[in-house]
Amino acid sequence: MRATLLRRHFSSSTYTLPPTIRQLLAPAAVGKGSQTATSTNEDADVTVTGWVKSVRRQKRVSFAVISDGTTSAGLQAVFPNSSLLPKELSNGASVKLTGRLGKSPGAGQEKELLVEDVKILGSCDPEAYPIQKQALSHEFLRDNVHLRARTASIAAMLRIRHALQRELSSYFEQQGFLHVHTPILTSNDAEGAGETFKLAKTAEKEPTPASTPLPEHHDEFFGRPAHLTVSAQLHLEAFQAAMGRVWTLSPTFRAERSQTSRHLSEFWMLEAEWGDLPVGVAGNDHTSGVRGICTFVEGMLRAAVSNALLVPGSKEDIDVSWVSSMDEKSELQKKRRQELEKAILNEERWKIMTYGEAILALEEEYARQLREGGVQFEFKPGWGKSLQSEHEKWLAEVFVGGPVFVTDYPVDLKPFYMRLNEADGDRQTVACFDLLVPGIGELVGGSVREEREEVLLRRMKESGLWDEEKGLGDYEWYMDLRRYGGSPHVGFGMGFERLISWVGGIENVRECVPMPRWAGRLLL
Amino acid sequence: MRATLLRRHFSSSTYTLPPTIRQLLAPAAVGKGSQTATSTNEDADVTVTGWVKSVRRQKRVSFAVISDGTTSAGLQAVFPNSSLLPKELSNGASVKLTGRLGKSPGAGQEKELLVEDVKILGSCDPEAYPIQKQALSHEFLRDNVHLRARTASIAAMLRIRHALQRELSSYFEQQGFLHVHTPILTSNDAEGAGETFKLAKTAEKEPTPASTPLPEHHDEFFGRPAHLTVSAQLHLEAFQAAMGRVWTLSPTFRAERSQTSRHLSEFWMLEAEWGDLPVGVAGNDHTSGVRGICTFVEGMLRAAVSNALLVPGSKEDIDVSWVSSMDEKSELQKKRRQELEKAILNEERWKIMTYGEAILALEEEYARQLREGGVQFEFKPGWGKSLQSEHEKWLAEVFVGGPVFVTDYPVDLKPFYMRLNEADGDRQTVACFDLLVPGIGELVGGSVREEREEVLLRRMKESGLWDEEKGLGDYEWYMDLRRYGGSPHVGFGMGFERLISWVGGIENVRECVPMPRWAGRLLL
Repeated sequence: MRATLLRRHFSSSTYTLPPTIRQLLAPAAVGKGSQTATSTNEDADVTVTGWVKSVRRQKRVSFAVISDGTTSAGLQAVFPNSSLLPKELSNGASVKLTGRLGKSPGAGQEKELLVEDVKILGSCDPEAYPIQKQALSHEFLRDNVHLRARTASIAAMLRIRHALQRELSSYFEQQGFLHVHTPILTSNDAEGAGETFKLAKTAEKEPTPASTPLPEHHDEFFGRPAHLTVSAQLHLEAFQAAMGRVWTLSPTFRAERSQTSRHLSEFWMLEAEWGDLPVGVAGNDHTSGVRGICTFVEGMLRAAVSNALLVPGSKEDIDVSWVSSMDEKSELQKKRRQELEKAILNEERWKIMTYGEAILALEEEYARQLREGGVQFEFKPGWGKSLQSEHEKWLAEVFVGGPVFVTDYPVDLKPFYMRLNEADGDRQTVACFDLLVPGIGELVGGSVREEREEVLLRRMKESGLWDEEKGLGDYEWYMDLRRYGGSPHVGFGMGFERLISWVGGIENVRECVPMPRWAGRLLL
Repeated sequence: MRATLLRRHFSSSTYTLPPTIRQLLAPAAVGKGSQTATSTNEDADVTVTGWVKSVRRQKRVSFAVISDGTTSAGLQAVFPNSSLLPKELSNGASVKLTGRLGKSPGAGQEKELLVEDVKILGSCDPEAYPIQKQALSHEFLRDNVHLRARTASIAAMLRIRHALQRELSSYFEQQGFLHVHTPILTSNDAEGAGETFKLAKTAEKEPTPASTPLPEHHDEFFGRPAHLTVSAQLHLEAFQAAMGRVWTLSPTFRAERSQTSRHLSEFWMLEAEWGDLPVGVAGNDHTSGVRGICTFVEGMLRAAVSNALLVPGSKEDIDVSWVSSMDEKSELQKKRRQELEKAILNEERWKIMTYGEAILALEEEYARQLREGGVQFEFKPGWGKSLQSEHEKWLAEVFVGGPVFVTDYPVDLKPFYMRLNEADGDRQTVACFDLLVPGIGELVGGSVREEREEVLLRRMKESGLWDEEKGLGDYEWYMDLRRYGGSPHVGFGMGFERLISWVGGIENVRECVPMPRWAGRLLL
């Protein structure tokens, strides 16, 4: 009873902002908007604040499209008397319009605003404004990163990010997961991989007399070197061992100098760790070990992307992002878009193959290329070798034509925490998978975690994490998770920008993040 | 139609994990659990995986409480034959139990599991296990940060964080806000405040021949110094100027050496920027300028906290966190808890006073303290001086006895981006507020942002951000936001750990974050 009262109180207009353009334009039948949105078919008096996206001045009547950032479509504003239109009503200007929102007689929009009053909140010099109507290059917009969200394509990308994050959160909530804020600063240098950012040393606060011996790391703020995290996984495992099902969407960092369309220095990673696998239907072999994780990941992506596709407005954003990334490659892009929709909407389960099967297919393809003249693969595939980006793309794009899980990689290609399989002759693999998708390659990677204390210790020794003097040292805590009530568990990581790239059809991850950072580039 | 089909498909058991203990224990009437949770009153066969929290061995029947991390209560497990109970079933061990879940005849729980099969997944040596049943000190648990989520109080805190984040996200979603991932690495050094962390320089990849002159900052990865963000606000304003209503919950960093119960080196900040103010009821003066922001913030906190309090399980977590932080100060804590519930649940609006009014009240109190012997304030209050922590707490705890917004601080106490009010004689203030709450002091701070180009430029010059040679230099972009369609907007920031501290009754923010970092301390 109390709950009902309160909820009514909080949805009252006292605390509620005026409806956004998205809420005003929402079809009445859907009713997804806020309580105050005028989502009926009746005409209504409304006030709208937004930015001018285009103006069409005609002799008597004029038109403008107004955006408040909440929807790709924008609001069609009709000015019945062109002579009263302020000169400052130009592309980029901020305006406040009051009028009647009603059914539009024109094609292209359901509703339009018949404007009764115009107020210019902030003008925008058409000569100087960098965001002109004509198409602007990605590079130009990266240089103007503080203004680029004003373009239709970057705005659509930001709304796709938002929608996917919301739907992913909702999926994890339904599945009983806890969201954990894993730390950014860490003493872990990612096994000395050399691609971690390190904090600069700081001066001590109090100068020490010269006679006093200085402790080691006295000039480090934390008393030891501090790094930016490259993955939340090990930390997340500590929370898994107490909270059962945990996930995070967290910034991660790599001091990677190579300039590719798939790498950023600062990027967001979705990571999850949990103990139980999906409840299987009888006779389904997708319910144990690696296949169970793949089932979960497939369910997560299908639910999040299809819900984002189906929520009013989101589909339109995805359309905008695909259009803006289509140039001369549009035929290929159309094919990719169809593959995406098929992967998400068709009921047919995604393909799963082992690394061994993938290598066989790649070797056959390599042989075929040789036979038919001219090898297209730069790297010759073979058992024990890493799958190169060209191999991953070929598997997803050509061999399967959709997402494909590749499982059970050789132990030497994967980190120490992945669970060792039974050896097959001299072929020793781990219980892991990579999810490969067209246009991207690796989107998700995960594994069963090694829960057996003695096997883990051996693997850590093999990986050089054990020291004659210090033992496991900084990794001792990780072993504690196995010592005290350790239990079988699994997990995965997904690059969030790669997901945006896949769903939005966006070529480069630099256009998949609000403010991209890469080697040599740090604006704002 | 398609949508319905899909949604049905995705909620099918194919992709769904088994129910958690929270879902299994959820009252049938509430129906908040996942689709597969057995939330009926019928007995059901279930399998549960979790950790042993306590064991009571009796001659014939034995009992254990099992937690999977999803709820404070845990599941009561009944073992009908004590002689078959494995020795390894001890505190901290990981177990898999199969049995019948039914109505419990005992007091203290609605349901219990009559166990038919026990499997020990991972044992836990009772002698060596650091997480013993008796109360452990905060300091001990900070040293064992990888294990501390196994205590009832830290686990409750993690669930409170999760619930508040979920409810805050939901509030912003309803209000038409877009979530933006603002960058962590920034070229902005926060006006040289000296409390920002800086990245270490990196060696160049290719050594340069000695004859080639090296460019400035050649040894920086980004070609310029990089800092960890201290606030997302300026970046968020760039997105506000395109997307209208934006918010973020993002890690922020301060190289602050002072060791207080309210400061961390790495903490999470909720920040929001938007243009429109709440729709007011007639005659309500809370709808313009600063008062409009206060109204929004009050609505946000009431909605998020009351929903978290009202969702099954969350109230219980809040109870646990308050109990665990109550020691000898329990009377005071009880008062605080009552104040919190009153602030959130009563309909009476929170108090608003100007800084001028607050100073008058503090001066009167200071005089009274002098008069009645013995000053308790360490700092003498006065117009133009900062409110000290002791002043903030007195205002919220004694003077108001609940949350209080203090508005319109003197211009010299606040940053350049806050909007200048009309001067009142020689008293020049800005349109800002701090929200003070009992036990914490400042919880939220915000302002109307200065949208007038010429006033902003003057304020930036006064703040030393303008250089004869370089002009605004690295802040030029911020001025662009005003030049091109700039419009009135407002915003605020809230320390997320302080919110957890207030709602959870948790004394120190080090117990309000999964893995705390402060000067001299960086574990894991």
